[in-house]
Amino acid sequence: MKKFMDDTFLLQSNTAIDIYTAIKDLPIIDYHCHLDPEAIANNWRYENITHLWLGSDHYKWRLMRSNGVPESHITGDAPDQEKFAAWCATLEVAIGSPLYHWSHLELKRYFDFDGVVTSKNAAEIYVHCNTLLEKDEYAVHGLLKRSRVEMLATTDDPADTLKYHAKIQYDEVPGVAKVRPTFRPGLLLDPANPAFGEYVKRLELAANQRGGITDWETLLTALESRLDFFAMRGCNICDHALDPPVFDAANSETKAALVFRKALRGETLTHEEAIQYKSRMFMWLGAQYKKRDWVMQLHMGAMRNNNARMLGLLGADTGYDSMGDKPFARPLAKMLDALEKNDELPRTILYALNPTADEMLATMMGNFQGRGIKGRIQWGAPWWFNDHKPGMQKHLITLGSLGMLANFVGMLTDSRSFISYPRHEYFRRILANQMGTWVQDGEFPHDMELLTKIASDIAYYNAKGYFA
Amino acid sequence: MKKFMDDTFLLQSNTAIDIYTAIKDLPIIDYHCHLDPEAIANNWRYENITHLWLGSDHYKWRLMRSNGVPESHITGDAPDQEKFAAWCATLEVAIGSPLYHWSHLELKRYFDFDGVVTSKNAAEIYVHCNTLLEKDEYAVHGLLKRSRVEMLATTDDPADTLKYHAKIQYDEVPGVAKVRPTFRPGLLLDPANPAFGEYVKRLELAANQRGGITDWETLLTALESRLDFFAMRGCNICDHALDPPVFDAANSETKAALVFRKALRGETLTHEEAIQYKSRMFMWLGAQYKKRDWVMQLHMGAMRNNNARMLGLLGADTGYDSMGDKPFARPLAKMLDALEKNDELPRTILYALNPTADEMLATMMGNFQGRGIKGRIQWGAPWWFNDHKPGMQKHLITLGSLGMLANFVGMLTDSRSFISYPRHEYFRRILANQMGTWVQDGEFPHDMELLTKIASDIAYYNAKGYFA
Amino acid sequence: MKKFMDDTFLLQSNTAIDIYTAIKDLPIIDYHCHLDPEAIANNWRYENITHLWLGSDHYKWRLMRSNGVPESHITGDAPDQEKFAAWCATLEVAIGSPLYHWSHLELKRYFDFDGVVTSKNAAEIYVHCNTLLEKDEYAVHGLLKRSRVEMLATTDDPADTLKYHAKIQYDEVPGVAKVRPTFRPGLLLDPANPAFGEYVKRLELAANQRGGITDWETLLTALESRLDFFAMRGCNICDHALDPPVFDAANSETKAALVFRKALRGETLTHEEAIQYKSRMFMWLGAQYKKRDWVMQLHMGAMRNNNARMLGLLGADTGYDSMGDKPFARPLAKMLDALEKNDELPRTILYALNPTADEMLATMMGNFQGRGIKGRIQWGAPWWFNDHKPGMQKHLITLGSLGMLANFVGMLTDSRSFISYPRHEYFRRILANQMGTWVQDGEFPHDMELLTKIASDIAYYNAKGYFA
Repeated sequence: MKKFMDDTFLLQSNTAIDIYTAIKDLPIIDYHCHLDPEAIANNWRYENITHLWLGSDHYKWRLMRSNGVPESHITGDAPDQEKFAAWCATLEVAIGSPLYHWSHLELKRYFDFDGVVTSKNAAEIYVHCNTLLEKDEYAVHGLLKRSRVEMLATTDDPADTLKYHAKIQYDEVPGVAKVRPTFRPGLLLDPANPAFGEYVKRLELAANQRGGITDWETLLTALESRLDFFAMRGCNICDHALDPPVFDAANSETKAALVFRKALRGETLTHEEAIQYKSRMFMWLGAQYKKRDWVMQLHMGAMRNNNARMLGLLGADTGYDSMGDKPFARPLAKMLDALEKNDELPRTILYALNPTADEMLATMMGNFQGRGIKGRIQWGAPWWFNDHKPGMQKHLITLGSLGMLANFVGMLTDSRSFISYPRHEYFRRILANQMGTWVQDGEFPHDMELLTKIASDIAYYNAKGYFA
Repeated sequence: MKKFMDDTFLLQSNTAIDIYTAIKDLPIIDYHCHLDPEAIANNWRYENITHLWLGSDHYKWRLMRSNGVPESHITGDAPDQEKFAAWCATLEVAIGSPLYHWSHLELKRYFDFDGVVTSKNAAEIYVHCNTLLEKDEYAVHGLLKRSRVEMLATTDDPADTLKYHAKIQYDEVPGVAKVRPTFRPGLLLDPANPAFGEYVKRLELAANQRGGITDWETLLTALESRLDFFAMRGCNICDHALDPPVFDAANSETKAALVFRKALRGETLTHEEAIQYKSRMFMWLGAQYKKRDWVMQLHMGAMRNNNARMLGLLGADTGYDSMGDKPFARPLAKMLDALEKNDELPRTILYALNPTADEMLATMMGNFQGRGIKGRIQWGAPWWFNDHKPGMQKHLITLGSLGMLANFVGMLTDSRSFISYPRHEYFRRILANQMGTWVQDGEFPHDMELLTKIASDIAYYNAKGYFA
Repeated sequence: MKKFMDDTFLLQSNTAIDIYTAIKDLPIIDYHCHLDPEAIANNWRYENITHLWLGSDHYKWRLMRSNGVPESHITGDAPDQEKFAAWCATLEVAIGSPLYHWSHLELKRYFDFDGVVTSKNAAEIYVHCNTLLEKDEYAVHGLLKRSRVEMLATTDDPADTLKYHAKIQYDEVPGVAKVRPTFRPGLLLDPANPAFGEYVKRLELAANQRGGITDWETLLTALESRLDFFAMRGCNICDHALDPPVFDAANSETKAALVFRKALRGETLTHEEAIQYKSRMFMWLGAQYKKRDWVMQLHMGAMRNNNARMLGLLGADTGYDSMGDKPFARPLAKMLDALEKNDELPRTILYALNPTADEMLATMMGNFQGRGIKGRIQWGAPWWFNDHKPGMQKHLITLGSLGMLANFVGMLTDSRSFISYPRHEYFRRILANQMGTWVQDGEFPHDMELLTKIASDIAYYNAKGYFA
């Protein structure tokens, strides 16, 4: 029997251990996360472990809710220590959950706590962690240093001022990750949303657009200015949530301009009109990204805000999202093809939330590889509901079977927490183990130089090159 | 090499064996099956093993058909011993089939037959079993006692008289399972079906409704009376087959009442009208179930009666059903949300027939957890085509990854046979083995007290609490 | 640690080794491939290993593209040795890819090269292989003999003259596989295609139809003549690509005839009209196949030619296809049922490209088993993007769980290459290993006679019987 989560955690062969040893200390490129730039700029401290660990983590909230913890002890006004105790009592029985492993790794790596979380020792752990949190090295900068994060990319709206990114750039603290914004249009691509008009106003303000945004042309001018501004702040990554992709190949600037004007006047758009606008805007943005050599991320197939009551009480991103199941291979292929035809397709990462899209995406990717660019199109790391051990294993095996695993840009955190970096450790262990298993089973040669090269590339160097 | 199906069958580590030992003798809560209440009420005996084993088991029929057995030896008029021989010759080569394991477990547990079924010893087994079937303890009551079934829930139409349930309640045989009816509306939610009008008449009769069912209001009155009647007979579970879910969030009582009247007049309904009625009726029933604190089961995504020729010859439920592949995440989310908004969502179990819906359901469940109820929404046990070893393993792993495995209400038989209870043994072995593997691999602590607690809960106590 | 790809490659138990030993030398029935009949008829030789290995293999092209190899070195005019070097440099890092295993097996079995392909020894391998290719036994006939291919079925259009098949039949070289054409209608079922009219002309010419094809009736007459002609050339297999299936159960000859006339006049068809024609034509063909006792293959769910730019440059089948994700269970069921109702359903093999359809197909199959024919409906071997180790394993396990594995007709190559037969070795190893694992784990008895019987059937005898 292997010891519970010891040094060889998840490593089932000597080859796996050797590969992991070779890659475990590589820096981290966290190319997609939801960390708060303000917290970094101002080197926040956390009052206690409840704030740091449970304050904004809807993964944990969901698990607590399904364990019968009342909302008062999740997002409500129960005392912090009680919330922590409720979490520990939940975690104690969470067999098979990635949260079980993540949480224990986080306590190990940041708080040198090597035990097992139970409802009995919750109070002890609470005190232990809070004492450490008083130290300077437990402010945000210290946590990032300890995590060896070389670069991290936050997620930001085109209308965002990026003032905290400016401060971070200006202050530049040695040993703390380079922080880049990600250009992530949301409302911009949702003209039927009642908040669209107001959003355009925000964009106008951010772009400081003379004469305002009054039509399609001035909209594009404002957007170009925002793209340039983001680039100035170090941005070279963008992100779109397509829930799921829709695309009208017969889109045109004329039609999109008409729809935009209609939306500005506050008129109700038909479903087809919204798609007209979205399709054209996507084409225009794609070409812009390509021109700037940015990486385009497409996050596809989430179904958000399914519990109207809780959306009303807590707002979005509070644990009420799930996987959609609508087919989208056809519109996705059309979108990518439309860009590729004009040589306007940026390097692109395709993420699907429902793992039933895995094989489809892994083969879709192949349709647009080429132009002599290694790993040009990527099938993105297991995302959100998929970043657990079986999900990562399946990802590596499927990518190996259908694409070129060796060119994979590897893991990200997608997290809101400053102590979630052990997810990279988790991924690296699973990667090393999968490669070790192949070698162990005689399916790949025991050539440690080559294995180390491939594993290091996936753990670090591919991402470094891709997002350089 | 492990011995063929010995005591450690499916258990691959000492921890697995320890866990299984701790749970193997727990009683069985069979909260969803298709057993015939008449057979229980009258303590039926079976003439021979062919009648008991092959008489109504369309799983076995399918396997025989795909093995080239002529229909005469499946559902036809061939002699019983020849049918049995044809089954044994089929089973002999059924490597990788759950039927191979179920059948051998059934012969072991009920008939003390420890050998391997082959075409050569079919005649011998036939005689052996038939001799035992003559004994009193091989009548239905004896079989249920031997299986340690504490409670079982049959599947019944709202228009059913439940007279056999009454007799079972009245007679109450010590040691024999408590038998509950399940309220399962079928035709009631299919107003476009030509048999709908006649069904309403049956319902009217069952409800003994003064003035008859003439409109939406009298329909609801009749249904309330049926719900009360079912409750009186011990019912606290309902079931809906949604093939797949459809829902119009803009449903209203006015529209549903109009459609119902049209249906009563025998007029043809449009697809939209049928959905209007279904949506409103579902809303009304959901609120009724919630009020009574019943558990609501939703069985989703079957595609039934695909072979018209055989439907004509043999009727429904004879082995000609398969998995649908239509998306249904959106309507399902809307249905559940509509109930949840008004606090009318009962505790609910979601089952999908096509395993491509597994991850979608396991995350959908999370959208409606909460209100301080542990395991409020369940992702139902692997159903029908999924209750084999790989299906159960995947279920446990997926539920562990995406929800809270420890709160799972566990296995059911979904069976028409009185000797199918080894499916619970099969499940418990797979559960113990999966938990043991996690411990063996260092992914969960070797804390036998905790492991036994979790395994016992999943095997028995969670269901006991959920269906109390 | 197992040695890299030695004799026990993929075999993880002694039982697995014993089973594999018993089946490894059985002949090969390659019932579906894309080999060029001209190359067989004229016993082609290949100038060098680049031509033989990389000349038409879009699997390899895709991998090279995703590795950043410029198109000049894939399908372009770079020197052959440089192309070969680019391939070796790609293969070197292709961990987890079936191409890694296939390529090494091909070098082992045809070129006695037992090493590991790297960028360093590419030049050496190039010379080694080319020297061998000069020998007579390395012409096409020698390669087929060495592969022990007993029968192979090429893929041919109804309008094809089959002149090379005639030459092969006439010359009949001892020890070289029997070569059968497969009747695969493509454009015939695509009346909305601009090339449809021209195709009908080709068909008219091939059928040597007096008075030409002027309406539905003369179309059928021409097709009957082509079916007879194919039969004369040894054909007893047909194939349809359904991307995905569509079917109107209300089809009729009258409607189809109208649509056909409209198409002949070059008028644009509506989507519904095209489906009318397709549905009726499929029904008619199905009945024809049944009458002739042919096997019908349905290849479902590909999404082809997704990169318009590369389609323009290189044409079809060059590596720009991927998996579709549209549901198709309903129309598929309706099609099969419509044929079955009239006893016009041929023995049928169902293949899906997207593995999300696996379980659906494996259960759909069961709806139409029966009529006393063993393995009447088959769930076809893992196809195209699925014929890798995890795909084959999943296929065997799923088929075992949901159908009758022992009746499976087994593997095919689906290949354009004369040295791809080790895919059968690959499959046989995976089959032996899966069966061995079940025995090893105590899930099936260690009865070598029975195991050998089942494995030999799947590897060879079932296909021999099915395609006899």
